[in-house]
Amino acid sequence: MGFLMTTQKNNSALNKAATLGVCYYPEHWDRAKWQGDAEQMREVGITLVRLAEFSWALLEPEAGKYDWQWLDDSIETLANEGLSIILGTPTATPPKWLIDTYPEILPVGIDGQVKKFGSRRHYCFSSEVYRQHCQRIVTEMANRYGEHPAVVAWQTDNEYDCHDTAVSYSDAALKAFQLWLANKYADITALNKAWGNVFWSMTYPSFAAIELPNQTVTEANPAHWMDFRRFTSDQVVSFNREQTEIIRLATAARAEKADITHNFMGRIFGFDHFDVGNDIDIPSWDSYPLGFLEDRSDHDRAFRDKFYRAGDPDFQALHHDLYRAVGDGRWGVMEQQPGPVNWAPYNPAPRAGMVRLWSWEAVAHGAEFVSYFRWRQAPFAQEQMHAGLLLPNSEPSPYLPEIQQFAKELQQVSQTDIDFFATSRETGSVAIVFDYPSAWAWEIQPQGQAFDYFALVFDVYRACRSLGLSVDFISADATLAQYNRYKMVFAPGLFTVTEEQQAIFAETTACCVLGPRFGSKTKDFSIPESLPPNLSESLLDVKVQQVESLSPDTVLPLADCDAEYDYEYGLQYWREYVTVGSQATVTQVLADGSAAVIEQQNIRYLTGWPDETMLNKLIKTLAGEQGLKTLELPEGIRVRQLGSYQLWINYSDDNYEIDSAGAELIVGDSLLMASGVTLLKI
Amino acid sequence: MGFLMTTQKNNSALNKAATLGVCYYPEHWDRAKWQGDAEQMREVGITLVRLAEFSWALLEPEAGKYDWQWLDDSIETLANEGLSIILGTPTATPPKWLIDTYPEILPVGIDGQVKKFGSRRHYCFSSEVYRQHCQRIVTEMANRYGEHPAVVAWQTDNEYDCHDTAVSYSDAALKAFQLWLANKYADITALNKAWGNVFWSMTYPSFAAIELPNQTVTEANPAHWMDFRRFTSDQVVSFNREQTEIIRLATAARAEKADITHNFMGRIFGFDHFDVGNDIDIPSWDSYPLGFLEDRSDHDRAFRDKFYRAGDPDFQALHHDLYRAVGDGRWGVMEQQPGPVNWAPYNPAPRAGMVRLWSWEAVAHGAEFVSYFRWRQAPFAQEQMHAGLLLPNSEPSPYLPEIQQFAKELQQVSQTDIDFFATSRETGSVAIVFDYPSAWAWEIQPQGQAFDYFALVFDVYRACRSLGLSVDFISADATLAQYNRYKMVFAPGLFTVTEEQQAIFAETTACCVLGPRFGSKTKDFSIPESLPPNLSESLLDVKVQQVESLSPDTVLPLADCDAEYDYEYGLQYWREYVTVGSQATVTQVLADGSAAVIEQQNIRYLTGWPDETMLNKLIKTLAGEQGLKTLELPEGIRVRQLGSYQLWINYSDDNYEIDSAGAELIVGDSLLMASGVTLLKI
Amino acid sequence: MGFLMTTQKNNSALNKAATLGVCYYPEHWDRAKWQGDAEQMREVGITLVRLAEFSWALLEPEAGKYDWQWLDDSIETLANEGLSIILGTPTATPPKWLIDTYPEILPVGIDGQVKKFGSRRHYCFSSEVYRQHCQRIVTEMANRYGEHPAVVAWQTDNEYDCHDTAVSYSDAALKAFQLWLANKYADITALNKAWGNVFWSMTYPSFAAIELPNQTVTEANPAHWMDFRRFTSDQVVSFNREQTEIIRLATAARAEKADITHNFMGRIFGFDHFDVGNDIDIPSWDSYPLGFLEDRSDHDRAFRDKFYRAGDPDFQALHHDLYRAVGDGRWGVMEQQPGPVNWAPYNPAPRAGMVRLWSWEAVAHGAEFVSYFRWRQAPFAQEQMHAGLLLPNSEPSPYLPEIQQFAKELQQVSQTDIDFFATSRETGSVAIVFDYPSAWAWEIQPQGQAFDYFALVFDVYRACRSLGLSVDFISADATLAQYNRYKMVFAPGLFTVTEEQQAIFAETTACCVLGPRFGSKTKDFSIPESLPPNLSESLLDVKVQQVESLSPDTVLPLADCDAEYDYEYGLQYWREYVTVGSQATVTQVLADGSAAVIEQQNIRYLTGWPDETMLNKLIKTLAGEQGLKTLELPEGIRVRQLGSYQLWINYSDDNYEIDSAGAELIVGDSLLMASGVTLLKI
Repeated sequence: MGFLMTTQKNNSALNKAATLGVCYYPEHWDRAKWQGDAEQMREVGITLVRLAEFSWALLEPEAGKYDWQWLDDSIETLANEGLSIILGTPTATPPKWLIDTYPEILPVGIDGQVKKFGSRRHYCFSSEVYRQHCQRIVTEMANRYGEHPAVVAWQTDNEYDCHDTAVSYSDAALKAFQLWLANKYADITALNKAWGNVFWSMTYPSFAAIELPNQTVTEANPAHWMDFRRFTSDQVVSFNREQTEIIRLATAARAEKADITHNFMGRIFGFDHFDVGNDIDIPSWDSYPLGFLEDRSDHDRAFRDKFYRAGDPDFQALHHDLYRAVGDGRWGVMEQQPGPVNWAPYNPAPRAGMVRLWSWEAVAHGAEFVSYFRWRQAPFAQEQMHAGLLLPNSEPSPYLPEIQQFAKELQQVSQTDIDFFATSRETGSVAIVFDYPSAWAWEIQPQGQAFDYFALVFDVYRACRSLGLSVDFISADATLAQYNRYKMVFAPGLFTVTEEQQAIFAETTACCVLGPRFGSKTKDFSIPESLPPNLSESLLDVKVQQVESLSPDTVLPLADCDAEYDYEYGLQYWREYVTVGSQATVTQVLADGSAAVIEQQNIRYLTGWPDETMLNKLIKTLAGEQGLKTLELPEGIRVRQLGSYQLWINYSDDNYEIDSAGAELIVGDSLLMASGVTLLKI
Repeated sequence: MGFLMTTQKNNSALNKAATLGVCYYPEHWDRAKWQGDAEQMREVGITLVRLAEFSWALLEPEAGKYDWQWLDDSIETLANEGLSIILGTPTATPPKWLIDTYPEILPVGIDGQVKKFGSRRHYCFSSEVYRQHCQRIVTEMANRYGEHPAVVAWQTDNEYDCHDTAVSYSDAALKAFQLWLANKYADITALNKAWGNVFWSMTYPSFAAIELPNQTVTEANPAHWMDFRRFTSDQVVSFNREQTEIIRLATAARAEKADITHNFMGRIFGFDHFDVGNDIDIPSWDSYPLGFLEDRSDHDRAFRDKFYRAGDPDFQALHHDLYRAVGDGRWGVMEQQPGPVNWAPYNPAPRAGMVRLWSWEAVAHGAEFVSYFRWRQAPFAQEQMHAGLLLPNSEPSPYLPEIQQFAKELQQVSQTDIDFFATSRETGSVAIVFDYPSAWAWEIQPQGQAFDYFALVFDVYRACRSLGLSVDFISADATLAQYNRYKMVFAPGLFTVTEEQQAIFAETTACCVLGPRFGSKTKDFSIPESLPPNLSESLLDVKVQQVESLSPDTVLPLADCDAEYDYEYGLQYWREYVTVGSQATVTQVLADGSAAVIEQQNIRYLTGWPDETMLNKLIKTLAGEQGLKTLELPEGIRVRQLGSYQLWINYSDDNYEIDSAGAELIVGDSLLMASGVTLLKI
Repeated sequence: MGFLMTTQKNNSALNKAATLGVCYYPEHWDRAKWQGDAEQMREVGITLVRLAEFSWALLEPEAGKYDWQWLDDSIETLANEGLSIILGTPTATPPKWLIDTYPEILPVGIDGQVKKFGSRRHYCFSSEVYRQHCQRIVTEMANRYGEHPAVVAWQTDNEYDCHDTAVSYSDAALKAFQLWLANKYADITALNKAWGNVFWSMTYPSFAAIELPNQTVTEANPAHWMDFRRFTSDQVVSFNREQTEIIRLATAARAEKADITHNFMGRIFGFDHFDVGNDIDIPSWDSYPLGFLEDRSDHDRAFRDKFYRAGDPDFQALHHDLYRAVGDGRWGVMEQQPGPVNWAPYNPAPRAGMVRLWSWEAVAHGAEFVSYFRWRQAPFAQEQMHAGLLLPNSEPSPYLPEIQQFAKELQQVSQTDIDFFATSRETGSVAIVFDYPSAWAWEIQPQGQAFDYFALVFDVYRACRSLGLSVDFISADATLAQYNRYKMVFAPGLFTVTEEQQAIFAETTACCVLGPRFGSKTKDFSIPESLPPNLSESLLDVKVQQVESLSPDTVLPLADCDAEYDYEYGLQYWREYVTVGSQATVTQVLADGSAAVIEQQNIRYLTGWPDETMLNKLIKTLAGEQGLKTLELPEGIRVRQLGSYQLWINYSDDNYEIDSAGAELIVGDSLLMASGVTLLKI
């Protein structure tokens, strides 16, 4: 069962269902426990086990002296119980002997201080010597296990950029950045011109004179930062590719292809995930709904307290949909939160049923596997307070029963409704462009403290979802064919626009909702000569004259706020002052008379960041114009539309009555309880 | 028109009017634009153009290899259109080749980390090698353009201390500080005694053993800090003087004197502006009302949201008045905010009319010129989001029309009411002592987090202004004659009192309002032997026994709060417990019976920091006693009294009806609209 | 009078009374003032003077060149007036010449930056060269004054760990830590196993390869941190012991033993005070009620504003009781706040009467001496804004009269009610275990931002005190006999439980109130195999399956909240999910049905952190079950029960009528005014 047993992509009914997995660290436990662990995994319904991604110090305890025996044995033990293996390369944790030999491997922080050995991810992506040793250990590992039948897939490294580790300000990074720039610009004059270094006498005499953009007196040139961010991303990509190439070679002779994955994290933008995605077969991500709510939410205490045992109702789905785009349809959850975690400011226990709900939600968004982190809670070291499926003393955790329930339900649905899995990997009716360089651009130049690219995208995503729309993400490189799959495509905050995109806008059948800040920069991080949004007048006859950023308390109300609301709504955080030419039509104005929404053929342009009320009403209206049916869902109720299926989930504390008239209840009831899951067939 | 066309100071009717200027960067633009720019400037009403202050890398692209051609040409282009030039020395931005040759030029932060090349102001004032290179480039520049008829003035460097750059903790600073101390104290025993180094065994064996006061385990000796702040200020002064001396020499042969200016910033206290002022002819400052409101206001979000498109109604005026004092009557605005800026936490667009209002306000406070920053918005580099008079594509910005309106109004008034400009440079009826060393002292030793010297002075300034009083600043070195020009002189928070000041207090006709914290330290940062306020009993028969600082929520109410208020008012933040001798009279007491205000002849002493209500009522009462007429102005309405003229301005959103009975309306109406300006002649 | 005149401990009626002391710096003043100071001290009622603890630079102005004359003379002057001396070793302030010779003495911060000379405590405890020089100066000093009859006691150094100075990340600390680990573990494999270094490939190849746990990419191993904290504490202990051994030797020949003390600070946990306490005779601490309220309180602005002139009503008492435990019954106040201080964020003046109240409170908790800091306010250097008993000009401070009143009252009570002093040093009826390693453990692994060991202990302490219970602290090493002295023993947050403790729990007559987080780790910072609380089932048949931390706004209500409250109360911050075996009984449940309080024989277990209401009600109930009588005291009213005496104090602004029926009023009245003190005999 599951994607990993086959070299073809989604080519059988069987692997259209989802696989259950677990992350397992046999090296943490006495060998006497191994056999029992394997048996118990099988009994729980697990078929997939991730191994070894932090084990370098065990695999190579001294330079060049390998110890494979323990890994050989643990793979055999698992394989003998019919379990498949994802093998992780151990490069996220270079061992101490390697660091002591080559201390230049260590990364350097933005403050110029070396980050020391003692936790994980203590390497600089630009360290050539580290890359050589990574290639060596990956080669050894891939050669040893590449053709092992049970090792059906590989994971490269672990959570690139977690703990803000994509970036490094080391000497190695400096040298590599200078080389990267020389490759890009060839001539230092071209770089000086592209960056606008005539400003503030920043002209560089040579590539060798260029510095990293940290620790300047006041902010460095945004073009300097932007190239440094691109470089940083490229270093991650090439580091990863060095591993995938080795694994491809070592697994080439297999009858069944061994898929390669990497486990991404949530709300991480230090590198371009689409670029890494190009080199792997199936992206996965590590989904920690409660940790992310406390650690990575822009929402206030009241919102977080409301969902503290459930997670943000839209955060997981957004990442599911985003990584499905990164994987061009394929993706999985490598680490699913199975109970309280240890790393957020506050770490509550999930409400009963939520682990099952999160698992169902992942599957409804097309996950090929859902793998729990971790099998047994470790009693020692940094993650000792992170729950597992078993307690440290091997008793079942309070959440294991609901995982077993999920396993059974999944098994059942795979027999009765295999189409559900097929449709879960199909696309939604609306799409949002997600663009990592835009995230970098607005982090470099927010122009107002409240401007954050992810938050803007998230607002659009949440609004769509609260209207019952199922959303896909597409990259900024999406083709006309991709656009045409959707009724509506949103491109909020896309910092630069290409000629290819303009051609698509001109031809696509989709309604394209652009802005704010759309096309407001050239690739060189300058304001385009024809002013933003930098579209031909035949596409959008609008010019942005100036912009303003606003304090979080400020709302610029619409002229026509509905009287049914006892408050004014409109634009927040960001607003653009535009001139509108004759080919465009202003469809919504602010109370001060200026344009808020502009229409021209299939393009809609937002001159600012709509607050929740304006955004929901606007998307509802636009969706209606495009013939899309919308719902009005409470904050914690969500539905994923999947062809003839609907998966309803309840993040809230309140019950919700689903209108299931005429539908078949596959899982759950029409009364959707807190933490409930209902799968309908219509 | 304007001061810069003449070598005499205010000696003609003509230059009593104000000049319009602009900051221009021809090096940022294609030469093809230069001629049109010059013509358009002239048409707008601009007569003055600042050039070149960040252009070192262009003027000297390699060590010793100069390129003057572009600057020659741009000066000619402007001069041919009748525009006058202020030429900026380019020393705020040492080029990369110079830094690479002498990395010791770079400044060092309080954390001991070097600040790198990549933005601006990346130099340590104590670097001898940098000073030599600055003298060289300034000599070259001054020799080349010193006698050019169109180059009517010079600006040294740019915004000293912006980005907290007056201070540096480099080795060069350490050596220079040791030398400065040796010059001051001659004998290390004298220093140890002056600082009280017997405390905590801090005795220094020699000047060479002295360290900078940063990075100590807990706070360093305040006397150590105070001398370091004095030294830091002196370094800025001597750095600046090296440039002014070169320029004086190079321009000595001119028929008309070339004035020297420096463009100061707002709320900057890293050096003593009066000392720099002594070496220049006319100080100027860079006035960014909206940027300062968001970035440098102590006021809460509610206040800032109220004035977010207007600016703090008193912040600009305070600096106008302060720099007029620094310039002994002469001053200008070198950079006037012309639209949204890029550097504050939030950057809204000014309300329509505010750029005109700010310009009129500057003129009413005696500005000899108002120069807008910048001509055309740069599409690249750090300030690409900073508005100009033109958009990046050369179209006019939305604010250009109101600048043109202002230019016309100014032209008209200069023909009908030239006296307005003359009186605008005269003095007010009350004065406030402003003392940079006091700002350093209380930053070093706030004794309570809420104690800030500027905030205290600002409170007094705002209270006076809300009563319709026009205020002058005077320095702590002001003479008896200066004191006698005013009915009242305030000296809040003056940290030390000299014998000269005591003599003035004894003789002046002004009512002197002293305290809190007045005279509470000796020059060596000790408590004076006779206790604060350290005045002879014949002047003020009061001794401060102890002081206390209070949390921001605490008010010590007056005993006699007016029943008309529904809250208690009195002292906040700071209170002194005093003994009052027989020669002094307590005129206001706190509810606990202790003295709040004390009177002795022409001296009034405040034992604490009055809150807004107490301060307004107190100043109103004192002003009445001195025969000064006061108004009660709403928060956003201000008036500048200028002999027979009154300039009314409206920072608020509400209309205000001016009592203009019998007055002639020169500009505007008696109904003062939001952003409105009304000039009356009575 | 007082402890220091005798070598026996509490062996006479006389020294059962308390001694008044003062901290004095003759080196700060002209010699002409010395004689008068000594006389005035005597007149005030002072008998004890602390000297010299920051005077190294005076005692040894150059390497090896000593100047004892000034200290000889000042001791003689004081002794001639009958004053006894506590002599401080000057090692908190190494002089500049020593630092210049051995810069490696300086400590290094967690950021890797050296902390510089210029204030105090600028040394690393691991610097061998500094230890040698400390031994040298202490030897010289002890040999000179060890047998001086007036030098009745010694203080080592000053306020260890103040300004966070116990810890240092220097090279010296690294080498010493490696050695400490080698001594502890002998074999690197043992260390790797103990720490669980198999996790994240953290295996160390040798002790020499081990690093300090700072500046890692993400958090270091908690076991690594825990050993580093233990090491850090041990370094303080051995540093201190080197001094006490020298002093013991030099004073051995005295007829009367010279006691050794150290002055600890408030809320300081950088080292184990019990361990230092083992090497000294009598601990003391520096009690700054207003400074601590502003600087070290977890309470909000409203609480702090309520008590801003009084201090937290329970903070002083807690430390009195804690240091009495450290001293096994003996303790004193070395520095008592005598007026406003200089170092807190806000520094108000004490309400009239509070200095007397604080002094009385200390005596009622058994202080053998109360010594004020300082005699005369210094006009110079860092503490110039710190009040003394005299103003800088030698006039009396506003608080001197109430200190004189206290001296007289003390004198009187020592004649009429000497038993009061005896009972003040006896024990309370309930005890709380205080454990420094537990403070380190939960600082290393809070698992929720709101979890703080001291705050948890303080909550229990405050609840007891608000019920009128007098509390003792005991260490985690307390014996069965110690336990049996109490009706109830609380052990909140004790991170590890030993077999010895289990044996005590099984046998003690005390009701033991354990949890939350009790016994949740092994000494190696792992989760115990049998799960927390790691007690045998016969003691407590409970297993903690998982825990959760909660945001500060979240309360998990009890099922049976009293209707008399208009809010729900229960657990906050922390909650454990437990399984309860048949031998234990759940006595309180949460609204969700899970166990909140569990009972088994004499053990009570709390599964979480009770909020104030739950905690007060619970302790009241438990106390009642143990036959302890409780009161319900307002927030600012406290009483210390001392055999037949009661000392009532009033931190609040309101009067309080004491039920004194049948009691004799020794001091004060039954109407307890704000800042009032009433001593009753029943």
